[in-house]
Amino acid sequence: MKVTVLVGGVGGARFLQGVRELLTDADEITAVVNVGDDVWMHGLRITPDLDTCMYTLGDGIDLDRGWGRRGESWSVKEELAAYGARPDWFGLGDRDIATHLVRTRMLRAGYPLSAVVEALCVRWSPGVRLLPVTDDRCETHVVITDPESDDDTRKAVHFQEWWVRHRAAVPTHSFAFVGAEQASPAPGVLDAISEADVVLLAPSNPVVSIGAILAVPGMRSALRTTAAPVVGLSPVIAGRPLRGMADECLSVIGVETSAEGIGRHYGARSGTGLLDAWLVDEGDTADVPGVTTRAIPLVMSDPAATAAMVRAALDVAGVA
Amino acid sequence: MKVTVLVGGVGGARFLQGVRELLTDADEITAVVNVGDDVWMHGLRITPDLDTCMYTLGDGIDLDRGWGRRGESWSVKEELAAYGARPDWFGLGDRDIATHLVRTRMLRAGYPLSAVVEALCVRWSPGVRLLPVTDDRCETHVVITDPESDDDTRKAVHFQEWWVRHRAAVPTHSFAFVGAEQASPAPGVLDAISEADVVLLAPSNPVVSIGAILAVPGMRSALRTTAAPVVGLSPVIAGRPLRGMADECLSVIGVETSAEGIGRHYGARSGTGLLDAWLVDEGDTADVPGVTTRAIPLVMSDPAATAAMVRAALDVAGVA
Repeated sequence: MKVTVLVGGVGGARFLQGVRELLTDADEITAVVNVGDDVWMHGLRITPDLDTCMYTLGDGIDLDRGWGRRGESWSVKEELAAYGARPDWFGLGDRDIATHLVRTRMLRAGYPLSAVVEALCVRWSPGVRLLPVTDDRCETHVVITDPESDDDTRKAVHFQEWWVRHRAAVPTHSFAFVGAEQASPAPGVLDAISEADVVLLAPSNPVVSIGAILAVPGMRSALRTTAAPVVGLSPVIAGRPLRGMADECLSVIGVETSAEGIGRHYGARSGTGLLDAWLVDEGDTADVPGVTTRAIPLVMSDPAATAAMVRAALDVAGVA
Repeated sequence: MKVTVLVGGVGGARFLQGVRELLTDADEITAVVNVGDDVWMHGLRITPDLDTCMYTLGDGIDLDRGWGRRGESWSVKEELAAYGARPDWFGLGDRDIATHLVRTRMLRAGYPLSAVVEALCVRWSPGVRLLPVTDDRCETHVVITDPESDDDTRKAVHFQEWWVRHRAAVPTHSFAFVGAEQASPAPGVLDAISEADVVLLAPSNPVVSIGAILAVPGMRSALRTTAAPVVGLSPVIAGRPLRGMADECLSVIGVETSAEGIGRHYGARSGTGLLDAWLVDEGDTADVPGVTTRAIPLVMSDPAATAAMVRAALDVAGVA
């Protein structure tokens, strides 16, 4: 069986653990990973969601934080601060930096990001084929009210600045996927969707993870035309995101933070949307016209619990 | 008083400590620093001699090793090795990497190396104006017998590969200062020599430190034409280098590893050379035609002992 999953960072990585737990070596798992969070910092190209997936699946992740390397040290960050280097609000760990150095060197030598990911994964053996949604630079920026201004002067900041520095706690007006118009899916991405037996939308942030993936031209149409059923899983339980700040993101685009609101935002393939089926938490209900909904436990407490979610998704897709 | 010193790495940095120890805030010390050791590694621009001077004078040096940062950690290096990244034989410490990141970012943004050094020194307050001899890329390469070959197949390797990886213990045929023809002295270097009251050649490696500095076009002529006396200090005591592998370097260019051999290699300004005076260790003698020689204790055991060497140099120059 070929399973293709669209994923963001921490939630996406944990979801992939469940997919891997459920399936066997005879199956083929491909993750199409968000790159909207990617950023240049201190001359290094940083790809947080790809790294979170790689480290999580490769058993190198810090389990408490959910991102970055286990046993991390912070000497470089301290020293950069001592030089007064900016930005100083991003968590750049020493072990992590080695990954960024290898990546940056390969990118500067002309390798596409997808080739870099493949090379890095030789070490981590994630058991899942990780594909960046695009090899092009396509970054999520956020239009905010400038915190320095005393009126409503607006400015656009990189997603990381909004998310990490401002904790999404500034007046926020819109998202822009900078570079999306010129971007195209990375090698293998469209095939992974068209040749899949089932396509899953992980319970990742619908706006800045799944939404940023869908901003790449060709992705929506690939999902709408694949012969595989498309099943989404709600990242919101009882009106609250599983983790992260999906509510802040959803309110910016005028979508209610609820399983139903997000399901309707994705919409039905039989209409103009993307879903054949939509899984919501056992305590939630959702009426999404044209979409089969099913309520199951959606808390990814461990890979076994997550595997049960995946089994339900395959079941509702009719491929279990 | 204006004192200008040509220096390499560890020995040069310690010599500068002695200069700073002897002189007062009213004096002006300029170091013209070798850049022949500079190298790109893992996408980072590394300038070992400049950093050794900066860290030593800024009290950030590891006193045992003589290079790199005190309290250093090695997470990045371990991780790079885990990725199989090459080269794996260079000591790239975590704290040190922050310096390389700041430097590399500035260089890529278009700042010349001299501006980068000035910016980094804001943090370290070395008390000495550190100038790279050139802002151009001018690297020392070494022609060796390929250790992989079973005949005398030769190849050129970067100085660092010869020095750090091979410990100079391979058949070595010549040095080349790659880029020297197109290089010119960095801003301030020629003025620092022409306007000095005295110019000192530190007891650094005569071939790959002082020699690499002199390979930059304009440097020899600046030394030969300045009104300031030029005084050199022998890096060799009783036929052995104070530190490093000066003997290996000298033998490649056919110069005897002795105070007299090096003094004659530099030669007299009254002839075609560079020196007015030459200081050798109290146990050595040197006959260098046209050059005033003086024998004094030359071991840089601490800044006070080194300051006594500097006092002797200023004295023989007639500027004490």
